[in-house]
Amino acid sequence: MQKFIRIDMTTLKSTITEVPAKYAGLGGRALTSCFVNDEVNPTCHPLGKNNKIIFAPGLLSGTSAPNSGRMSVGAKSPLTGTIKESNTGGSASQMLAKMGIKAFVIEGKPADDQFYVIKLDINGVTIEAAPAEILGGCGNYEAIRILGEKYGAHVGIALAGPAGEYRMPAANISFKDPDGNMRSAGRGGLGAVLGSKNVKAIVIDETGAGKVPIADPEAFMAASKVFAKALLDHPVAGKGLALYGTDVLINILNEAGGLPAKNFTAGRIDFNDNFSGETMNATITERGGDGKVSHGCHKGCIIRCSQWYPDKQGKYITSGFEYETIWGLGANSEIKDFDTIAYIDRAMDDVGIDSIETAVAVAVAMEGGLIPWGDGDRVLEIVKEMATPTPLARIIAGGAGVVGKVCGLYRTPVVKDQAIPAYDPRAIKGIGLTYATTPMGADHTAGYCISGNILKIGADIDPLKKDGQIEYARAMQIGTAAVDSTGMCLFVYFGVADNPAGYQALIDMINAQYGINLSSDDVDELGKTVLRFERDFNKRAGFTNAHDRLPEFMEYEAIEPHNVVWDFSPEEIDEVMKF
Amino acid sequence: MQKFIRIDMTTLKSTITEVPAKYAGLGGRALTSCFVNDEVNPTCHPLGKNNKIIFAPGLLSGTSAPNSGRMSVGAKSPLTGTIKESNTGGSASQMLAKMGIKAFVIEGKPADDQFYVIKLDINGVTIEAAPAEILGGCGNYEAIRILGEKYGAHVGIALAGPAGEYRMPAANISFKDPDGNMRSAGRGGLGAVLGSKNVKAIVIDETGAGKVPIADPEAFMAASKVFAKALLDHPVAGKGLALYGTDVLINILNEAGGLPAKNFTAGRIDFNDNFSGETMNATITERGGDGKVSHGCHKGCIIRCSQWYPDKQGKYITSGFEYETIWGLGANSEIKDFDTIAYIDRAMDDVGIDSIETAVAVAVAMEGGLIPWGDGDRVLEIVKEMATPTPLARIIAGGAGVVGKVCGLYRTPVVKDQAIPAYDPRAIKGIGLTYATTPMGADHTAGYCISGNILKIGADIDPLKKDGQIEYARAMQIGTAAVDSTGMCLFVYFGVADNPAGYQALIDMINAQYGINLSSDDVDELGKTVLRFERDFNKRAGFTNAHDRLPEFMEYEAIEPHNVVWDFSPEEIDEVMKF
Repeated sequence: MQKFIRIDMTTLKSTITEVPAKYAGLGGRALTSCFVNDEVNPTCHPLGKNNKIIFAPGLLSGTSAPNSGRMSVGAKSPLTGTIKESNTGGSASQMLAKMGIKAFVIEGKPADDQFYVIKLDINGVTIEAAPAEILGGCGNYEAIRILGEKYGAHVGIALAGPAGEYRMPAANISFKDPDGNMRSAGRGGLGAVLGSKNVKAIVIDETGAGKVPIADPEAFMAASKVFAKALLDHPVAGKGLALYGTDVLINILNEAGGLPAKNFTAGRIDFNDNFSGETMNATITERGGDGKVSHGCHKGCIIRCSQWYPDKQGKYITSGFEYETIWGLGANSEIKDFDTIAYIDRAMDDVGIDSIETAVAVAVAMEGGLIPWGDGDRVLEIVKEMATPTPLARIIAGGAGVVGKVCGLYRTPVVKDQAIPAYDPRAIKGIGLTYATTPMGADHTAGYCISGNILKIGADIDPLKKDGQIEYARAMQIGTAAVDSTGMCLFVYFGVADNPAGYQALIDMINAQYGINLSSDDVDELGKTVLRFERDFNKRAGFTNAHDRLPEFMEYEAIEPHNVVWDFSPEEIDEVMKF
Repeated sequence: MQKFIRIDMTTLKSTITEVPAKYAGLGGRALTSCFVNDEVNPTCHPLGKNNKIIFAPGLLSGTSAPNSGRMSVGAKSPLTGTIKESNTGGSASQMLAKMGIKAFVIEGKPADDQFYVIKLDINGVTIEAAPAEILGGCGNYEAIRILGEKYGAHVGIALAGPAGEYRMPAANISFKDPDGNMRSAGRGGLGAVLGSKNVKAIVIDETGAGKVPIADPEAFMAASKVFAKALLDHPVAGKGLALYGTDVLINILNEAGGLPAKNFTAGRIDFNDNFSGETMNATITERGGDGKVSHGCHKGCIIRCSQWYPDKQGKYITSGFEYETIWGLGANSEIKDFDTIAYIDRAMDDVGIDSIETAVAVAVAMEGGLIPWGDGDRVLEIVKEMATPTPLARIIAGGAGVVGKVCGLYRTPVVKDQAIPAYDPRAIKGIGLTYATTPMGADHTAGYCISGNILKIGADIDPLKKDGQIEYARAMQIGTAAVDSTGMCLFVYFGVADNPAGYQALIDMINAQYGINLSSDDVDELGKTVLRFERDFNKRAGFTNAHDRLPEFMEYEAIEPHNVVWDFSPEEIDEVMKF
């Protein structure tokens, strides 16, 4: 029997039941979004007792399927007010799946200020007072160390950092990864939801867990091999990402003229070499990097995009050091020193704040005169201050929308109050449609049209033209909603987009595991169903098509080098979600 | 011919035309809301070139009708994102009406950072560079003095203070009053809209203006006398308000258990004597107050509610020192020293920030740990810092919603991101329905149900019960929308609510002025039409019934002394705007 766990923080009691029938065939994002739409009052205060936060491994998590260890976290977002699925690596997803836990939900809210650690093991749920030393500003690296001493080095951990404990709108949830460092359910402020429920950490001890049952092990293994080969054979998924990390995109986007610069006032920079993927690779190679270089964010990852960035002495600074963060601090905030960017990335992980939201907020704050342009040392101080927050640290941790509001700025790059990441919609029109229409607020991972617009994987669409973009953004969002439900890392898309056998193998693995017979049409329908859940929630929360818009400045301020503006009409944008 | 003036800040040119036919019968709020709904793109950025701000005297402004000198300012609000009509006293309304100016509109936006002064006189519009000395943090008192030296002591002035210049979301527009001090179009951040158009001040010189034409002077005079008598005969309008100011409400609301205390955690305080209306009267009487005591906010006011609050030496500190401000700093923020509250009120006027939004934001900041409870000296410092803004000053000037967001608070008393004023909806249910449903965001002046719930003027409805409140809140909002279109001060309602002859006299004055024959049904229809304009704009801006809700905490946290929660269902609330 798979378990469905509810933890009520009002009563500090939990219940473990069989999975309700309606959730049985769902996993990951499909499950979290279905549940949130079912049970969370869309007009509730995101930090109140009526919000619920759900953690769900994907359909394939816990199996030997490559790259299947991603986890979905769902709730109403305190940043956007929309439904939110935030997707993360780390060890938790595989562990929960092996323990037979389909999902666990945290609901209610304690009456007092006591913070708790929730422990999940094969015997059930234990709710304990959080150790005082991990509260009140303790960094995540130290908190993971302390929790490891207390609960064992082998446990999985999900953690609200100081930012989450203080319920800051851009707070993430940090997940311990196989190396003992951190991965984040980054976007949408779900760390604040965890903090609002006085949950400091969730400790997952898989000791005694069995294997995930597979209905047809032979078919599963066969499909798994085809799938793995599809990933490894692909130049990006199998090689490029491991070598350069996602940071490989700096030069690619710069070349394309879609790298937003200085708070979205241009599309290209001339200091890209300071922090490009090529520079990262050379730096890591030169410095040694504890021999780690690249690695996976979860067990079973064969893409291994995560880079292990060391200091000049070769000592670890940070990992999971992604393109979007480097772009946001580098190109968009003009911080030109790569090591400083790495230290800020580490500090953001340590306080538990979304690195995309924060990096964009920093650039907006620079435009608003709160921080000098390019002053990385000052940014590092401010991020560290989030552990004992100063007013400025609170403004930045409020997200880009809050910064724009308090600075009275017109040029605030947000959709539904979530910061626009690293790809300029004026020069890459497909991704703009995703930003505008995804139920999540601006989110590149909700329909990564960079793939067909820039990388020419899965499609070949001129990024500067409107032709074909509406259909493409729709298809990518539908497909992504399905992939997010499997526990698969999004990058598997690169491996299967142009490889029908690889794609079929992904479906075959699900069929073999569950003894079912999904077709690609069923997968497509799953993606649509997920989006319908999410849009239904948002509609009832008060969102309309009027919110599916990019910030106005993009219609009027053309960016170089292509001298382009955002030129989709409202009516055209509204076509994306018609399916 | 009445004039309709458009000032384009992109080209720095103006056009003066006849009043478009569709606006001919409208004035004040009816005109501003009709215009904004017509011409402003509801999804535009409030601080961008596509927003337009319109200033319109009321239908009766400029005449000898008592209390007819109020002015409406309309735009899309940067605080709420809704349509906004902000209503103010001061000299501008009467002057514009006498100059035959039906309304003036400021649109567009300069490409550079130069700030301007717009001068309106009978020859037309002049746009001049603003004197450097009134920019960059110059307080409003000093700016009015400097502008008076430059343009003459007789001119009317509308001014963006430092808060407006910096486009802070709670910035007001300050209007010079007959005493040379200030009145505010306070709510909704319209000062930021003015600031976004680089308009520092509007100077109105009525020299050479004639009289407002009256179609039937005799009938007008007769009606005006009846109307004046209705006001003067009423114990509140004719006597109470002049004697104690609006601050008379401190003891009344405290007695009723509807005085929100310590960020809306109780409904009664025990230090009400520190700053009640009775205490204000005794203090002013004792200190002398330059012999002013009470006075009107505009020429022709016979209610004279505004108190002239002096220091211990009898020297002016502030005027227009209202109940809602005193409540917000006193009861709600626990600042117990009346003089300190007066100095903060003065400082808020001086930087040009809405005193209601700011006072509520202060209490939320106290709850969030940013300011010690009751520390008035610190609050005074922070408000003064808005002139050269520190991060904390920016947070407070962002309004109560922003403070709640950056502090991760659940108990944030806002509707549509505008702070809930001085009357607790749990203990006074009628006003709660107004807060929830007015197109303006929480605003007591949009349908002042305190009248029938507490003061028993015009109606007698138990404030603690739901019975009759829906119909009452609807009727009050419709009536108010009509009154706001006449240029009449809202307090005339007290004089006419239970005096049919007085009410008829108000209609008779309009009919006599314009040579028309409105009935009370027509006036009712006017109010409905105004609300329809506003709701249409909001709907197209993305607002739905889901936004017509009070903050969730009011449903769960009962307040003493009546131990009451907010208990209207969503369906009941949605009945209010069905007409």
